[in-house]
Amino acid sequence: MISAASNEIDASTSLSVGDVDWSTLVTPCLVLDSQIMRRNIAVMRAKARSMGWRLRPHMKTAKCLRVGQWLFEPTDENENENRRAITVSTIREAEVFGGAGYEDILYAVSIVPDKVARLMACGRPGAVRVRAILDEESIVDDLSTAAGAAGETLSLLVEIDCDGHRAGISTDQTERIIRLARRIRESNHLQFDGIMTHAGESYGGADHEAIATAADQERLAIEDVATELRRHGIDCPIRSMGSSPTALLGRIQDVSSGQREMTGVNELRAGVFVFQDLFQSNLGTCSVDDIAVTVLSTVIGHRRDMNRLLIDAGGMALSKDHGTTGQRGTRIDGSPAVDYRYGQVCNLEGQPIGDWKVGSANQEHGLVESSSPIDFDAHPIGSRVRVRPIHACMTSAAHDAYHVWENNDWQRWERFGGW
Amino acid sequence: MISAASNEIDASTSLSVGDVDWSTLVTPCLVLDSQIMRRNIAVMRAKARSMGWRLRPHMKTAKCLRVGQWLFEPTDENENENRRAITVSTIREAEVFGGAGYEDILYAVSIVPDKVARLMACGRPGAVRVRAILDEESIVDDLSTAAGAAGETLSLLVEIDCDGHRAGISTDQTERIIRLARRIRESNHLQFDGIMTHAGESYGGADHEAIATAADQERLAIEDVATELRRHGIDCPIRSMGSSPTALLGRIQDVSSGQREMTGVNELRAGVFVFQDLFQSNLGTCSVDDIAVTVLSTVIGHRRDMNRLLIDAGGMALSKDHGTTGQRGTRIDGSPAVDYRYGQVCNLEGQPIGDWKVGSANQEHGLVESSSPIDFDAHPIGSRVRVRPIHACMTSAAHDAYHVWENNDWQRWERFGGW
Repeated sequence: MISAASNEIDASTSLSVGDVDWSTLVTPCLVLDSQIMRRNIAVMRAKARSMGWRLRPHMKTAKCLRVGQWLFEPTDENENENRRAITVSTIREAEVFGGAGYEDILYAVSIVPDKVARLMACGRPGAVRVRAILDEESIVDDLSTAAGAAGETLSLLVEIDCDGHRAGISTDQTERIIRLARRIRESNHLQFDGIMTHAGESYGGADHEAIATAADQERLAIEDVATELRRHGIDCPIRSMGSSPTALLGRIQDVSSGQREMTGVNELRAGVFVFQDLFQSNLGTCSVDDIAVTVLSTVIGHRRDMNRLLIDAGGMALSKDHGTTGQRGTRIDGSPAVDYRYGQVCNLEGQPIGDWKVGSANQEHGLVESSSPIDFDAHPIGSRVRVRPIHACMTSAAHDAYHVWENNDWQRWERFGGW
Repeated sequence: MISAASNEIDASTSLSVGDVDWSTLVTPCLVLDSQIMRRNIAVMRAKARSMGWRLRPHMKTAKCLRVGQWLFEPTDENENENRRAITVSTIREAEVFGGAGYEDILYAVSIVPDKVARLMACGRPGAVRVRAILDEESIVDDLSTAAGAAGETLSLLVEIDCDGHRAGISTDQTERIIRLARRIRESNHLQFDGIMTHAGESYGGADHEAIATAADQERLAIEDVATELRRHGIDCPIRSMGSSPTALLGRIQDVSSGQREMTGVNELRAGVFVFQDLFQSNLGTCSVDDIAVTVLSTVIGHRRDMNRLLIDAGGMALSKDHGTTGQRGTRIDGSPAVDYRYGQVCNLEGQPIGDWKVGSANQEHGLVESSSPIDFDAHPIGSRVRVRPIHACMTSAAHDAYHVWENNDWQRWERFGGW
């Protein structure tokens, strides 16, 4: 049991101390600083608690049962949270976490009839409840038929579009939302359980105020729609919003209002906060020191003639996501977003080396660039560095395990992929 | 046995005919048109033969033993090619292909002493020969020691930089090249077996002439260095060049010159040609119809208000590589390169739908854009499309198998990843 407010360094799990044995790891590989991860989890739990909302963490980033254990580790404050509600991005995730007994699983990508049987097979009556999301009336009958064939009732949330980012029914189409909710309620094998929204546009937030405003917008979208549905006699037990930026930078709201108890947001979804990444640090949702995953890499070449170092982490180990290129955003210290291209290069203790970044990423070569002359002798061929990821979800997906330093040895935490 | 010149459609393996059963596949997934792949392989084999060079295909793209079988399928012309020489980008690939008995394996990423033991464990005296590449004198002694500890001699090629792209010793540093070759020859457990180069800059080629010139440059770099080494009494049995663009668009050279028999290129490495992709089509090394892998995806959302369709292939299934954005290049028909962003959207027969492309790729959502109004009724929720990849190596790596239509059923060809 850890205290949710705990920030102290636990030397037996931290990668920032000197006695970690890096030599036994094969590079490139993914390392996870579990101490930083636990701190990130504690911060998000505290935020959800301060809002009076349930946290339904998104497993799309970690895809790892061991990380799941930490997300639901009992703390002083949550002893009664014995129902593990999670969000997933693939049915494969639902299969794995459902198989591990997670009680409440929301598949947060628009469901289609063909996927109902597999999704519902992840549920177990009275034990594991699976839910899906929907924004399309035309497939309601087919969904109901598919759910009936699976012998159960499928729990559905209607997706609301609060910012034109991706999926969902726009808040200005209230009539469509009500009609869809009614159609679901009238279907034999479907159950309407509420609404959800995702403020994806917050990822383009230029400053913290813009992201806080996106969070307000997300919250108001939920409240307005839930109020309207209630006016039409339709209750929304689940009212879910989420994205790591709006979760972390959203303003603390007044949770005492009686009205909001029935229509206000009551659930928070977020995923990348568990590991954080350079993109998030550029939005100011964290500092670079909060980034829990890095790619361990070996120096494999010196281009002294080009002031360039080659490492064995390329596009395959880092991903080709270079989302900080052209990113708007304001960092936690108020400075503007930095372009790290394919990753920020750190020493083994996790401290950045100058302004080194992976400027280009070929399949198995990372080309490290520096604005000042590289001290090649300090980084001989065969020495190692750690690269902070641009986008933790994509970089983690390139690997099949996290390497976690615990009790003075490396533990391998398996992760999975696929659909 | 197939004829290398065979271009006819084999209906039992082609995905462009109407009787393929798409309904049994779970989306998103990777499908491979083996008929197109075989045609691509035949084209590259013919090119290598016309140059009088051995083809040493790069397995980094496919990472699949079944694809390997096709690369070395006996044909009328190659009955005597019974030694399967391949290139790999990871030691994991060397382990898998070495385990399958491939006789000659070149690990084409700069070797470091820490990796020697694992690499050499892939070899088997008299059966499987592993080779590595090097451009750095400072680690020669450590490499020799590591090879000695493995109880064998490590075959090494020196990497030559012909275009400033990545690794290798520049051709203008001949003295360094000679010194390194000598150091290798003088080492107890190392063997100098030749030189190799990779014209990575050809990927930025503005037109076919520029790529053909890059191929000339690559070839001349090899010839010049081999000639210089020979002048110093050092033979280069292996003289290897490669990249799919320079291989396919390089000019046919005169192979009859006696001098070149000892110093000219005698080996061609290439990988992505097996599947081809949109990036390659923009360089004119192939047409879009030569792209053998696509991602099968389901329509999961209609944004009629935004003229946008949502599919279940996002960044996780397609990769975040958007290399055609800003790409220079001239297509096979002479037209300029097209930006497909995250992929070109085709119908199930593999024909492009208008100018549809995946404009944005969230983790599990692809946002399909079109310059003309989308006919949503023709693409209902639950219907399927196929997405051509920007970069076949990255997209394939996101999946654990190829789905291949053979004998009127889907075959699953396993692929592997990792290091």
